Amino acid sequence: MTFEVTILGSSSATPVYNRNPTAQLLNCNEKFYLIDCGEGTQQQLIKFGLKASKIDFVLISHLHGDHYFGLIGLLSSMHLNGRIKPLHIFAPLALQEILELQFKHSDTHLRYELIYHVINATQSAVIFQNSDVIIETIILNHRIPCTGFKFTEKKRLRKLVVEKLEAANVPLEYYPILKRGVDLTLPNGDVYLNVDYTIDSAAPKSYAYCSDTLMDARYFDSIMDCDTLYHEATFLHEMLDRANETHHTTALQAAEIANLVKVKKLILGHFSSRYKTLGPILEEAKTVFKNVELAIEGHTYQI
Amino acid sequence: MTFEVTILGSSSATPVYNRNPTAQLLNCNEKFYLIDCGEGTQQQLIKFGLKASKIDFVLISHLHGDHYFGLIGLLSSMHLNGRIKPLHIFAPLALQEILELQFKHSDTHLRYELIYHVINATQSAVIFQNSDVIIETIILNHRIPCTGFKFTEKKRLRKLVVEKLEAANVPLEYYPILKRGVDLTLPNGDVYLNVDYTIDSAAPKSYAYCSDTLMDARYFDSIMDCDTLYHEATFLHEMLDRANETHHTTALQAAEIANLVKVKKLILGHFSSRYKTLGPILEEAKTVFKNVELAIEGHTYQI
Repeated sequence: MTFEVTILGSSSATPVYNRNPTAQLLNCNEKFYLIDCGEGTQQQLIKFGLKASKIDFVLISHLHGDHYFGLIGLLSSMHLNGRIKPLHIFAPLALQEILELQFKHSDTHLRYELIYHVINATQSAVIFQNSDVIIETIILNHRIPCTGFKFTEKKRLRKLVVEKLEAANVPLEYYPILKRGVDLTLPNGDVYLNVDYTIDSAAPKSYAYCSDTLMDARYFDSIMDCDTLYHEATFLHEMLDRANETHHTTALQAAEIANLVKVKKLILGHFSSRYKTLGPILEEAKTVFKNVELAIEGHTYQI
Repeated sequence: MTFEVTILGSSSATPVYNRNPTAQLLNCNEKFYLIDCGEGTQQQLIKFGLKASKIDFVLISHLHGDHYFGLIGLLSSMHLNGRIKPLHIFAPLALQEILELQFKHSDTHLRYELIYHVINATQSAVIFQNSDVIIETIILNHRIPCTGFKFTEKKRLRKLVVEKLEAANVPLEYYPILKRGVDLTLPNGDVYLNVDYTIDSAAPKSYAYCSDTLMDARYFDSIMDCDTLYHEATFLHEMLDRANETHHTTALQAAEIANLVKVKKLILGHFSSRYKTLGPILEEAKTVFKNVELAIEGHTYQI
């Protein structure tokens, strides 16, 4: 199953040095989840050859502009490009008012339905699940209500040991029962124990997205043991006072968090405009956590 | 006096083929007027090495998103980059509500003042003047209230004939009186006729911006005899029905308008996403008006 994330924007606050404000496109089994949507996200999608029409879910972490100012333009373009299938938006309550006010004054009547799901930023919760994935909120600590998102694959079906099934002449139509982990009893009474004909599939993987936050142990449980953690690393640690003041994290802290919550891979993003080059941010994080990468726009990371 | 316009966006509706939604930066005597502000305008300013901090006036023609969705991001970045001087915004009434709602929910308190000037889209009026320029609205015919803008230089001061002034020993401190076109009488009673010591300066120039409109003779008076006319040319004339339906203009019509109102130069923009290349639009316009150019992003046009 495809489970990967493409970075569309890696800048904090303002676009600079060819870096755009935050947005990411998560592909989970060829369903597409847009996570945050800074200004210019639709241009970034075009630049990287990604189709906005494939996005069925948008998740907005909080209402600082660098995380959602691109959404109204993207929604308008979807309309103009003929979209008719519904779009789900998970976001703080006020986003609907902001969007609807702009549609009203442009006399825009969308041809497709926007389905709003209001996020409660005070308590972690499962906000969505389908056959591929469960999405839970992560309660972050920022200047305004802010949630991250944790995507966990659904437990995959068991893998069939086809040569054994064929040797035992089990009819094909019964394979799906065995894939679900159930023992099989045929109409003639023959019994096939699941354990004899299947093996466990790969463990479900998980991706946690922590957009804007002070380092705060209260959210660590929510991201414990993730396979891949995206964490903001707005500043170098020499700017810790500024990070605390603005409720952001340093690269060193992000790496410490990755260690503490035992993730396999860390991706750093949301870089301050004060950093023209990002090498020092990566190096700082590497001093405490080895498997770390920078969020590079256009780059796709396997989870 | 500098009087030039730089194109920041030339696309209609959606960004496509590396073309961005509408925005232009007018430089009139080193004061900067931003005309419309589609999504990504702040990125375009950076790309072309133009300083957002120099902009003191923003004019929004109407509330279709491709003409203003970039404004909230630009205003936010001005704030984050330390702006303290006021910014004047000329726009439809509802823009203030749209902007303030977003500032409220991001808990943003601008360090600089936004001074809103509400545009009445039913009657042409002078909406601003300073020592350099007069700005008047042009009442366009679009699906929602929409105004263009005409910028006319103030009458320039007369040019001094310095060799005559020096030969007549006129003290330097009296030169400004002559520049204003007034006859000069010195304290000793000597009289210097203005006409003998000055010559007329270049005629004031004018620039008209017609953003989104059906071809409609009612606004032709407002743009008569302009030096440079920017006019939308969303479609080729073979799409006239679609142009009429969406209240837009074809390239042929824009050229006919340029002829009818006797402008010196025509700039075409607001190109539909259906046109990957723009040569046919230029060629169509040239069949009826010779001095025509395409609005190319990053290109500066002298007025």
